[in-house]
Amino acid sequence: MIYFDNSATTSIKPKEVINAVLDGLTKYSANPGRSGHKLSMLCAQKVENVRESVKNFVNADNVVFTENCTDALNLAIIGTMKKNAHIILTSNDHNATARPIFEMAKKYNIEVSVATPSTLGIITENDISKHIKENTYLVCVNHMSNVDGEIADIENIGALCKKNGILFLVDGAQSIGHIKVDMKKCNIDMLAIAPHKGLYSPQGVGTLCFLNSVKLNPIRFGGTGTEGENLYQPTTSLERFESGTLPTPNILGLGAGIEFVKSHFNDINSKIDDLSTYLNFELSQISGVKVYTHPNNAYGVIGFNIKDFGSTEVAQILSDKYNICVRGGLHCAGLKHRFLGTLEQGVVRASLSYFNTFTECEKFIRAIKQIAKM
Amino acid sequence: MIYFDNSATTSIKPKEVINAVLDGLTKYSANPGRSGHKLSMLCAQKVENVRESVKNFVNADNVVFTENCTDALNLAIIGTMKKNAHIILTSNDHNATARPIFEMAKKYNIEVSVATPSTLGIITENDISKHIKENTYLVCVNHMSNVDGEIADIENIGALCKKNGILFLVDGAQSIGHIKVDMKKCNIDMLAIAPHKGLYSPQGVGTLCFLNSVKLNPIRFGGTGTEGENLYQPTTSLERFESGTLPTPNILGLGAGIEFVKSHFNDINSKIDDLSTYLNFELSQISGVKVYTHPNNAYGVIGFNIKDFGSTEVAQILSDKYNICVRGGLHCAGLKHRFLGTLEQGVVRASLSYFNTFTECEKFIRAIKQIAKM
Repeated sequence: MIYFDNSATTSIKPKEVINAVLDGLTKYSANPGRSGHKLSMLCAQKVENVRESVKNFVNADNVVFTENCTDALNLAIIGTMKKNAHIILTSNDHNATARPIFEMAKKYNIEVSVATPSTLGIITENDISKHIKENTYLVCVNHMSNVDGEIADIENIGALCKKNGILFLVDGAQSIGHIKVDMKKCNIDMLAIAPHKGLYSPQGVGTLCFLNSVKLNPIRFGGTGTEGENLYQPTTSLERFESGTLPTPNILGLGAGIEFVKSHFNDINSKIDDLSTYLNFELSQISGVKVYTHPNNAYGVIGFNIKDFGSTEVAQILSDKYNICVRGGLHCAGLKHRFLGTLEQGVVRASLSYFNTFTECEKFIRAIKQIAKM
Repeated sequence: MIYFDNSATTSIKPKEVINAVLDGLTKYSANPGRSGHKLSMLCAQKVENVRESVKNFVNADNVVFTENCTDALNLAIIGTMKKNAHIILTSNDHNATARPIFEMAKKYNIEVSVATPSTLGIITENDISKHIKENTYLVCVNHMSNVDGEIADIENIGALCKKNGILFLVDGAQSIGHIKVDMKKCNIDMLAIAPHKGLYSPQGVGTLCFLNSVKLNPIRFGGTGTEGENLYQPTTSLERFESGTLPTPNILGLGAGIEFVKSHFNDINSKIDDLSTYLNFELSQISGVKVYTHPNNAYGVIGFNIKDFGSTEVAQILSDKYNICVRGGLHCAGLKHRFLGTLEQGVVRASLSYFNTFTECEKFIRAIKQIAKM
């Protein structure tokens, strides 16, 4: 089987990640931050080490563990929500940001603007700045589109937001692990990460990273292991964002995933660069194939279509006949397909990881050539 | 090390559970419910099998996977919230229900009544009925206290709620795995489960089970793998409650945990019954020890104090000097400690699992005898 659906989740996890999860189920199997006994304290220390590791990886002030990246984005959006105000997001945004924003907009009379890229392949500060109003309080930008890998110039958008006193939220679901992000350098107030993608970590944990300056409200309430006598959510400690039992094994897996990516960063990304460039070039040579991914984009997400074939049908043929796993359809990205004009057809997406090979890419290209002749 | 902190999380997980998590990280490592390729479909089928298994285990109509039990309780409470109305909860309730209820109450002008037990060791329908008002729309009951194991007569409380047209929410965090629950027989509209406790499953997944009659609104928004073009949350499918990537390895672990508990149910609970009864009896014989757990309660949660010793200090001595893990303090249960009069001292809690032994209990009793002589 050839697995080219790594933007949904990286399928092959490094042995270090698997061993860390196993450790969380056996050696470090207690509830961190609850009891004071030595095993609970040891687990808490392990969890805090991973928090520190994520913090250093993106230069954040604070890191909160969430259910998944979508949960982190909900915390960022609902936790900073301002009634009767204005939000800007982009046509690259996933439903993970679009839906909480549009739901809040409907309920609390928030105006929403969708910025689109004027330069092919990149969303710039100019694309954002034209939408800024007096009551704009949040700019939400998908760092890398999950449909075609299109990226945003977050450094200059961050500078624009800072200049205008606007909160800047970055959805790093697809980018983290592939592009180094420094929150402070880029003036990113909040950054959401999907560890099970580019950090090769287990599903079942996400993170919201944020700066000290952000006034964030919790969106769930419950036991935090602190202020047990308080019938309301604590208002100061970081634990107020982490009600209930944390997924310790997954957090330890995330710790190992970050170490793996840090120590193989150049290898991982030069390989993905090579494979992406090859795939993009070869696909664009095939008659009838339209590639949406910009030729310079080499981050492992290649969106394309074959003639007017339905993208889910192409994905189905690849799975059934060639044993190749890609995703077709809309990829939970309605705004993007409105922009691309592919709401009906969807897009076929091949997405790569460090564990893919040139041989797999060649087999894939051969398959696409055959399908394009149908 | 003797681990008596199983109400925080069961420390030893059965090998079947560990293997199922491993399978989720290796064999079934794709994103279920997103792509249509064979590996994603296989993962989706595995996840649906576990959903069906949970559904059958408690006789529910619907099962939603959440981050943890607290998340499930937040979905139940916030997702059915009615402004300017009235909620009843009990003095056994954990902050996982108390905090979302009191936070909603403050924000939306909801009146809250706290029912207390009139019969030692059990909360009955009479304890609830005296608080019912015309605008009571939700009764929330902790099935088993995490402080002293006190239980609620959910069958008769369910009948009372049904007669009065009131939603009935049960927090099954401590009870599921120890007491068989039939949601339909007990007229439970919503039941939250903490799989990592009595179902010996991994941390990192919870479930909210609910009946078809419940009108539940999602509390988080995002990609659901369905209606990708819709910028608002879908309004019909169950996926609207499960935005973002599911924790497949943990869900598979939960499936194995349920099978383990189902096939060892009598063994597990007769052993815990024996150990609990022994511990309760022996503790109550020690001069200076006050046991809060009712003598008839044999579900593995034994709350006690030694003289006026701080409960966290006792837990610390047990950890440092005897290598025994218990929890002291307030256990995220402010209402319970108000009722017991232990807000200052807290309670020492020993909590058992199937993997504990009589030898461990004897060593524990010897340690408590020595501490009580200090």
